[in-house]
Amino acid sequence: MAYPYKKMDEDDFAYIRSVTACDRVWVGDEIAREYYRDEMPEYGVFPPELYVEVINKEEISAIMAYAYENNIPVVCRGGGTGLAGGATCKYGGIMLSVMRMNRIFPVDHKNQTITAEPGALLLDIQQAAAVEGLFYPPDPGEKTASIGGNVITNAGGMKAVRYGLTRDFVRCIEAVLPDGSIMNFSSNVVKNTTGYAVKDLVIGSEGTLCILTQVTLKLLPAPTCSSTLVMPFGSLEDCADMVPKVLELPFVPTAIEFLERELIEIVERNLNKHFPVTDGEAVLIVMYDASSRQELDGAVEAAAEAALANGASDCYIADTPERAGTVWDVRGAILEGMKADSVSQEECDVVVPRSRIAEYVKAAKRIALSKGIRVEPCGHCGDGNIHTEMLRDKGMSDEEWKSATHACLKELYALSKELGGQLSGEHGIGNGRLEFLEEFVGPRMIQLYKAIKLAFDDRLILNPGKVVEFNK
Amino acid sequence: MAYPYKKMDEDDFAYIRSVTACDRVWVGDEIAREYYRDEMPEYGVFPPELYVEVINKEEISAIMAYAYENNIPVVCRGGGTGLAGGATCKYGGIMLSVMRMNRIFPVDHKNQTITAEPGALLLDIQQAAAVEGLFYPPDPGEKTASIGGNVITNAGGMKAVRYGLTRDFVRCIEAVLPDGSIMNFSSNVVKNTTGYAVKDLVIGSEGTLCILTQVTLKLLPAPTCSSTLVMPFGSLEDCADMVPKVLELPFVPTAIEFLERELIEIVERNLNKHFPVTDGEAVLIVMYDASSRQELDGAVEAAAEAALANGASDCYIADTPERAGTVWDVRGAILEGMKADSVSQEECDVVVPRSRIAEYVKAAKRIALSKGIRVEPCGHCGDGNIHTEMLRDKGMSDEEWKSATHACLKELYALSKELGGQLSGEHGIGNGRLEFLEEFVGPRMIQLYKAIKLAFDDRLILNPGKVVEFNK
Repeated sequence: MAYPYKKMDEDDFAYIRSVTACDRVWVGDEIAREYYRDEMPEYGVFPPELYVEVINKEEISAIMAYAYENNIPVVCRGGGTGLAGGATCKYGGIMLSVMRMNRIFPVDHKNQTITAEPGALLLDIQQAAAVEGLFYPPDPGEKTASIGGNVITNAGGMKAVRYGLTRDFVRCIEAVLPDGSIMNFSSNVVKNTTGYAVKDLVIGSEGTLCILTQVTLKLLPAPTCSSTLVMPFGSLEDCADMVPKVLELPFVPTAIEFLERELIEIVERNLNKHFPVTDGEAVLIVMYDASSRQELDGAVEAAAEAALANGASDCYIADTPERAGTVWDVRGAILEGMKADSVSQEECDVVVPRSRIAEYVKAAKRIALSKGIRVEPCGHCGDGNIHTEMLRDKGMSDEEWKSATHACLKELYALSKELGGQLSGEHGIGNGRLEFLEEFVGPRMIQLYKAIKLAFDDRLILNPGKVVEFNK
Repeated sequence: MAYPYKKMDEDDFAYIRSVTACDRVWVGDEIAREYYRDEMPEYGVFPPELYVEVINKEEISAIMAYAYENNIPVVCRGGGTGLAGGATCKYGGIMLSVMRMNRIFPVDHKNQTITAEPGALLLDIQQAAAVEGLFYPPDPGEKTASIGGNVITNAGGMKAVRYGLTRDFVRCIEAVLPDGSIMNFSSNVVKNTTGYAVKDLVIGSEGTLCILTQVTLKLLPAPTCSSTLVMPFGSLEDCADMVPKVLELPFVPTAIEFLERELIEIVERNLNKHFPVTDGEAVLIVMYDASSRQELDGAVEAAAEAALANGASDCYIADTPERAGTVWDVRGAILEGMKADSVSQEECDVVVPRSRIAEYVKAAKRIALSKGIRVEPCGHCGDGNIHTEMLRDKGMSDEEWKSATHACLKELYALSKELGGQLSGEHGIGNGRLEFLEEFVGPRMIQLYKAIKLAFDDRLILNPGKVVEFNK
């Protein structure tokens, strides 16, 4: 089975319609172009042969069982906001959208959880928790992502320093396997050592092992107050060196981000925004949230003192939502600013040990310069996850840009490996980073990944050609 | 390959000696009886054919490569403190002890991590972190367990309510695969979406997928103060109903345990200890730790107020280490107390949704009574992980005890499943709970577990017959 897959025909279309509904199935040219790709068309634009919007797990199960029997690839799609070219029909077949499965069930106060279908939006989950006085902490930049997509890619975001990743909030998963079996991975319990940790393997598997049909997420009591500090430093090194100092304070920060002055200026210049702190070649932004004002004041005071003791020229305390807004507004507009400041972009999502951040950023700039590319590293300093954005300036030909970014990425990944880092911190492999994976993790690991893929998907029909590629 | 395994002969013994050292290899009757079993001989006593104490990963790799070629089973052993009959040579072969690999490397302050070999003891890791002002939170009862054992079984413990499980503190793993390959699963980074989450799958796999050779663990700033509250209630239901109320307060507690009066009396009667609170049919014990006295006082005050508002007859605040000691001393002596109060014990480690704790405990008692067994449920109320200890009274024959406990376990597992719980919360499947697993998770899940096992261990030589059993 597997390659070559069956080319879908009228009988296949009719069958999918029969187990779903005619007005939820589109074929061939009827399929909207947005379903050919995710947010990174650079990582692949592929037309599905059939696009279906399912409404329940039984439909998913019926489609998978049919696809399994008939050797038809299936790709599940959520909000389509991925950044790795993951949810695309690389080998044609069926694109199955779960965006109509977007119910959010009432908050379970006794278990402090919320259960939702995979098509529910992250922002709606956050909101549903908030109105009940609870808090769903994972906070990736893209709020219109689906929660299923967040879970299947183990989305990160700015608040990971204190709260962790999406992974840390998933209590249980209901999913359909490639053969159509409907499974529950764990249940609404706090801990579980019953058999293998399938739930934990499935999280981050980018739709290649199963299709999520329901998730139950842990919630926390909502913090009652928060404060943001901006610490300006004379150099990037001093700024990066401050990170472990912040983390050694007794109160764990929610977020630690860094911005270099150059990047702040790009946002200010292009988007007419103004960052409230004007000095410092690099600034560290530290956010705390707390359950009481005393707690918060104690944390802020200690952090400000540590900043001044470690070379910060000042410590700006944004202790109102409005003041904090002016800081985070600039941080949140970085991608937009860079887009306005360049013709196109390529992105590198490496994560390095926190102790190596400054070293990575310096070397990354040197590497990019040697390839003739402007690069702006920024991101989650508290996590060591540095989004190294490459900017294409006018006058660079397609060919030049492509070959320069490719060469640059190769060196950046080698650098990350050398520093004890990883290829991707939160955006995943998908299709876009696949070509770099084997060199990074080595052939024995690829062999293990393939064996894991086959353990779930022996006919290779689920999102084929992502994370692992058998067809070469 | 696999069953039947090769019976080891002199050539095999000589080879293992040649890749290790003569004075670290024992065979046949030379092998100490303690290596035939873990802490639960009830779950199997099996003589290894060869017992070897390795000192580095290269030795492990050489042994595995040989075992792989020659169809010899290998079982890795740490501290031997497991409670599931996991680290035993069910099919003979090699028992490989990692207890000489017990180095703990200096704390990495910049990354806030500690790295150790698998034979390092949990208590030594905790101590090594503490002397540097840092904190390794996972706190299973057994402090002489090896850290490798803790990671490979995903050990839980009392502080999981606030801090999570061992899983939540594992940054990276170095391990040897069954074919001898030395691998790194992740690195010292905070997040990672590079390929499948192999590290997360390996955690809790009970030595059936790979042998750990080094782990890097996340540390936290040490809390500076803590306080323990004891809330007496008139009934178990009221006590259990208090749990979600505690969890809804803004400050997250470190531990939430419950004790019924009957159990307190067993400990007091048998071990001459005295619990400081004399009223209440059931008591809830809530511990907070904090980074400042103000934080702590706020948390304690809010919890005490909530207790009194929700039916507690009192709220005893143990705000000095001595006072807290008298509470935790009784909690920590439960197993010892029960052992002194009965001829032998059998244990059930189910976990249920927190909302179903009271229901579970009531029904468990009814079930046990119907089988003529005394049962004492206790444990991690904040987690829903109820250790349901069955006590054998004098006068019960071996046959009666065995058949009664078996019938009782079957019903307890069915009850847990009905309540949305799991078979094991923190002790694992090993050999002892294997016979109950398929009925609990269903045949399709067992098929998936087997496929996962084969993805790592295609010749079934690593800890065979645990978690999954192919030989039937």
